[in-house]
Amino acid sequence: MKGNASDKPYVIGLDLGGTNAVFGIVDDKGNILGTNAIKTQQYDTADAFVNAGIEALKPLLDKAGGIAAIHAMGIGAPNGNYYNGSIETAPNIKWAHETKVPLARMFSERLDNIPVSMTNDANAAAIGEMMYGNARGMKNFIVITLGTGVGSGIVINGEVVYGCDGFAGELGHVRVVRGPEGRLCGCGRTGCLETYCSATGVARTARELLANTQQPSALRKLDADSITSLDVAIAANEGDKLAQDIYTFTGNMLGEACADFATFSSPEAFIFFGGMVKAGELIMKPIREAYDKHVMPVYRGKAKFLVSGLDGASAAVLGAAALGWKK
Amino acid sequence: MKGNASDKPYVIGLDLGGTNAVFGIVDDKGNILGTNAIKTQQYDTADAFVNAGIEALKPLLDKAGGIAAIHAMGIGAPNGNYYNGSIETAPNIKWAHETKVPLARMFSERLDNIPVSMTNDANAAAIGEMMYGNARGMKNFIVITLGTGVGSGIVINGEVVYGCDGFAGELGHVRVVRGPEGRLCGCGRTGCLETYCSATGVARTARELLANTQQPSALRKLDADSITSLDVAIAANEGDKLAQDIYTFTGNMLGEACADFATFSSPEAFIFFGGMVKAGELIMKPIREAYDKHVMPVYRGKAKFLVSGLDGASAAVLGAAALGWKK
Repeated sequence: MKGNASDKPYVIGLDLGGTNAVFGIVDDKGNILGTNAIKTQQYDTADAFVNAGIEALKPLLDKAGGIAAIHAMGIGAPNGNYYNGSIETAPNIKWAHETKVPLARMFSERLDNIPVSMTNDANAAAIGEMMYGNARGMKNFIVITLGTGVGSGIVINGEVVYGCDGFAGELGHVRVVRGPEGRLCGCGRTGCLETYCSATGVARTARELLANTQQPSALRKLDADSITSLDVAIAANEGDKLAQDIYTFTGNMLGEACADFATFSSPEAFIFFGGMVKAGELIMKPIREAYDKHVMPVYRGKAKFLVSGLDGASAAVLGAAALGWKK
Repeated sequence: MKGNASDKPYVIGLDLGGTNAVFGIVDDKGNILGTNAIKTQQYDTADAFVNAGIEALKPLLDKAGGIAAIHAMGIGAPNGNYYNGSIETAPNIKWAHETKVPLARMFSERLDNIPVSMTNDANAAAIGEMMYGNARGMKNFIVITLGTGVGSGIVINGEVVYGCDGFAGELGHVRVVRGPEGRLCGCGRTGCLETYCSATGVARTARELLANTQQPSALRKLDADSITSLDVAIAANEGDKLAQDIYTFTGNMLGEACADFATFSSPEAFIFFGGMVKAGELIMKPIREAYDKHVMPVYRGKAKFLVSGLDGASAAVLGAAALGWKK
């Protein structure tokens, strides 16, 4: 994958989130030489952000032996478009809110014109799994990221699916509940998978179950409006039945959705990524059971259900770095 | 695409249906030198079927200048697996009902070992559209076949999606109605797109609307149990309001489903294939309207909605032939 292994042993990975922008320097085995973070929203313009990023990179580059040691850079960013290297109207980044920011080109110009690629965070996660994680050797798989939202990175024939516009792979916005009872989604529609299976979806399910049942639960001691998915996780791990029911509900939704996704690309694995997978079997078991129940018979028993093989804290940086190697 | 244009100007295409097996000899422009058909179910074994097929091919091969003029053969068949060239447990073909039939190899052995490829009919249609039809020049599109069932052929980055097992692309079995009210599907589950949007689905919708409404309709003169999608088409074309409502319902189901498919591969076009598309705007207009209403905003206005560009009578043979060129 590398142009010249001996000359350029590293890539830069940038995990650009709504809160933190984490830069890392990573080799082709997934070893991280170092990371440095800045606050994404502390800057009013994309130029100011890039300036700060270049400053944050300096000590890392010194450690790596300078820009001559860098093969490429990969950026994972919300609404990052692979085709043009731009962030396009990302609602949660104030300097990219209502505009196209050609961030890949901007970084390249400041980094001796090294190749810089960009994609969204879920696609970066998929590339990371392919290069460093649990999808090594796989040609057909789907990564589903369970975070504030639900994202996806789809790999078919060894390539990430970008579609005609660079925005393919938004499985969090497949509508799993049609009709008026579907939950309102941030995308303006109702019933999207994300409204049930994201961290905020889990909190929403908690509030609904608390309001609509009499079931005793440690969660009843909390202010319902401020319950988070972390509260649910803690209670579930302590054996709280209602909290566990929330995971079962969430896993059922995911497994049934994956049964539909199988009809599309018949992947050899679904890989789940993000904080919620720390719940382990509490979430994975209902996913598998709902999948087996709902999937078309021809696909039954074929797909593996895995959790991410990337180290949680560095997973997103590794994904972005892998994009750098992959390009 | 051809190995040697001057030496081998033709491919053999075989459209293997539940009733007829149509052989055609086709050049790389989609011109059909000739066709010949045998009855699929008239044979008790795959060997007997292949024998009859070779006989049916003889006059065509003579016209083409013999087997030396044939570049390859492509077969479109129900449950045809691209990876191994076999028909796998096709419920509607008695000699392939409960077994794997390596039909590609069997034909190759009888035809001077020319390369023989196989895929299912919907994938063959997609390849046909790419080579001869309305997807020429496209890299990302989805063909949806509306026949006795609903099938699909998905093309991403210029390649048909086969998945880990050769059976990807069964969008007729995405579940569009979840829960107990979904219609029972031939696959054993409920609520699949196919139960609403296939020819049999349309007839089912007709029976439901006739039973559940008082709306006057020419269809009421027919025996409800034997109404077909053709009856509905004829009535709709004559202005029958209830028959037109059936198309609107069917198109809405398809358009809403396509809105979900966009989240997967963001195609530049959806291409509809099969007898039902003869209804033209009666079906295409509700498809487009439901898509625009339900699709995620980022995809709105990007995908074209097209009908097949392949001549109806020969479309399936052309698809199979295109597979021969493509391999």
